[in-house]
Amino acid sequence: MPFTFDILHRQGSARTGVFATPHGEVETPAFMPVGTLATVKALDPDDLHRAGASMVLSNAYHLHLRPGDELIRKLGGLHHFMGWDGPMLTDSGGFQVFSLETLRTITEEGVEFRSHINGDAKFFTPESVVAIQRNLGADVMMQFDHVIPGQSSEAVAGDAMERSARWLGRCLAAFNQSAATAPFAQTLFPIVQGGIHPQLRRESVSRITDQADWAGFGIGGLSVGEAKPDMYSMLETTDDALPRDRPRYLMGVGFPDDLIEGVRRGVDLFDCVAPTRMGRTGAVFTHDGRLNVKRAELREDPGPLDPDCDCPTCTRFSRAYLRHLFVSEEILGLRLLSLHNVHFLIRLMRTAREHIAGGTFDRWSADWLGRYFATPQLTR
Amino acid sequence: MPFTFDILHRQGSARTGVFATPHGEVETPAFMPVGTLATVKALDPDDLHRAGASMVLSNAYHLHLRPGDELIRKLGGLHHFMGWDGPMLTDSGGFQVFSLETLRTITEEGVEFRSHINGDAKFFTPESVVAIQRNLGADVMMQFDHVIPGQSSEAVAGDAMERSARWLGRCLAAFNQSAATAPFAQTLFPIVQGGIHPQLRRESVSRITDQADWAGFGIGGLSVGEAKPDMYSMLETTDDALPRDRPRYLMGVGFPDDLIEGVRRGVDLFDCVAPTRMGRTGAVFTHDGRLNVKRAELREDPGPLDPDCDCPTCTRFSRAYLRHLFVSEEILGLRLLSLHNVHFLIRLMRTAREHIAGGTFDRWSADWLGRYFATPQLTR
Repeated sequence: MPFTFDILHRQGSARTGVFATPHGEVETPAFMPVGTLATVKALDPDDLHRAGASMVLSNAYHLHLRPGDELIRKLGGLHHFMGWDGPMLTDSGGFQVFSLETLRTITEEGVEFRSHINGDAKFFTPESVVAIQRNLGADVMMQFDHVIPGQSSEAVAGDAMERSARWLGRCLAAFNQSAATAPFAQTLFPIVQGGIHPQLRRESVSRITDQADWAGFGIGGLSVGEAKPDMYSMLETTDDALPRDRPRYLMGVGFPDDLIEGVRRGVDLFDCVAPTRMGRTGAVFTHDGRLNVKRAELREDPGPLDPDCDCPTCTRFSRAYLRHLFVSEEILGLRLLSLHNVHFLIRLMRTAREHIAGGTFDRWSADWLGRYFATPQLTR
Repeated sequence: MPFTFDILHRQGSARTGVFATPHGEVETPAFMPVGTLATVKALDPDDLHRAGASMVLSNAYHLHLRPGDELIRKLGGLHHFMGWDGPMLTDSGGFQVFSLETLRTITEEGVEFRSHINGDAKFFTPESVVAIQRNLGADVMMQFDHVIPGQSSEAVAGDAMERSARWLGRCLAAFNQSAATAPFAQTLFPIVQGGIHPQLRRESVSRITDQADWAGFGIGGLSVGEAKPDMYSMLETTDDALPRDRPRYLMGVGFPDDLIEGVRRGVDLFDCVAPTRMGRTGAVFTHDGRLNVKRAELREDPGPLDPDCDCPTCTRFSRAYLRHLFVSEEILGLRLLSLHNVHFLIRLMRTAREHIAGGTFDRWSADWLGRYFATPQLTR
């Protein structure tokens, strides 16, 4: 049965579970690689399987503009189009549209904006965004929400949270109306908003849970400029407020320490472009921080990027070779580093699951963060 | 026993064989993908295996400049450095050095040139080029030769051919002197020169075969600006002149029609950057010519690049998806098209082997060329 969530083990707020979708099961906590334009940049579906990915994310805003969601539907949906047969989630485009800043106008009806590609005028509404995501056919679609900067005042955050709640109602109505004729089995996740204001976060949860029995929840508007302690505090608030028997997806958060801090606070799913974006600049996650492969002292280094890592990059190639690829601007370097970084976060979540199941998560996560932050080569 | 060549079937001058190297056997005729800088651009060793590659090529000139052949030796040789455990050949750098034109000075001792990367002064001699290739450790190394434009006069071509023959003697002496202390088992291939002048080609073969019992022969100085009929004529000359019981490697030639014309004239090995270079511009080989995936009419095309093809790209992705990747400038597109093109040429040579073995090569190759050249979408 699709969209069930079974919790297997708990330690404090951290838990392991299995989120079932029409395209398979996701063991949680899990990191989802981001395939913005129907490809996780530089990686193909085989690479994703090798990296251990179970669920991937793509983006309604980007795919609506290029190549078009109607086209993707005509070609059999996003799974078939990009050759990924596992669980998939599409973001609604709320974050992208609100990031356009000067190029958009927000009304209660929706958001008018100009394409970042060719300047074409576009209008997104809760209804149109559901229609786009119906065409794409990912297992999970996200509501259209009003995203605000991380440090927004209570007034601004409250206004946006309330609009997001109203838009959720319209998304749900559009989702339900389209269910009978939809070509793919899907579910709709609401998004908890409220900025860094705990009362607004609690009210957001309340307005969301009043509307339906959701299969899962997005937690939005974090890692968008607020201080880290504020983010962790908001996660504690939502952890307490949200139903515990549904998966929680912390949107756009994907550095290793954030993943561990999120799991500690009851988060089950994460996504972020960081591992692939960093990989394309030569930067990799390691068990003791980060490393840039272009550094001169790696020129003759025969060792792997991270001696603790069993990814296809670390088991086959030396730091010296990877540095050579980057210095020579060889395309293969972009792929091998992206593969390592994605594998790194997926494996980190697998290790977290093992420690939650074994009852050692608190100790392990504290040790892990201590080691990660103790390294002198750490740069952030 | 390394570097043997067993001929299995013949049809006219075409033949199938097995070329044995310390890193495995190569069924010939075969196309070798080019990994100029210790990577076949955009592909990793697994991709090469999936494409059916048996032998790959790399380049002494480029690797000497970046990352340095001494470094590669220190790190265990080129096979280990780039993660390719199959047969490998390195070109000597003759072609690259002579391509520098204004940046080089040729004397009998060698070639003084400036690095195309940083302008550093360099001096290549037959001896230094053997030393570089000893450090790299490819199964087959090529002699340092004097390469000239395809339309050179008999006087210019004769002078360069004679210098190449003298340099071969120095390469062989350096190769033999370094054999006892060499870290890798290798063989040295001479290169037949002589431009488009049949008498010079015959004389080149004679001067080469006088010097040793070679494990194989390079045929150089073709596909460098001369007319195609001249190239084919020179191949017929060398086919008659060279010993028939050794593999012949036609250097730098790699379009489908050239491969088939070469096999007809007794060539066993080919290499070319064309499949990967074309792939990075969106152009692919098909059974009826070429196709550029950026073409607007492919926007909704659900079919594979080439319906006849069983490569990992054609069996998984549509033209519409590949067009989307190129239009969106996604890195994955570069890899998927390079993979198809390399697979295409490797499979073409496998099919040629089957027809030579079955006695149907003449008919099949004529049909193949007719179909390839009949297509209206052909662009060259």
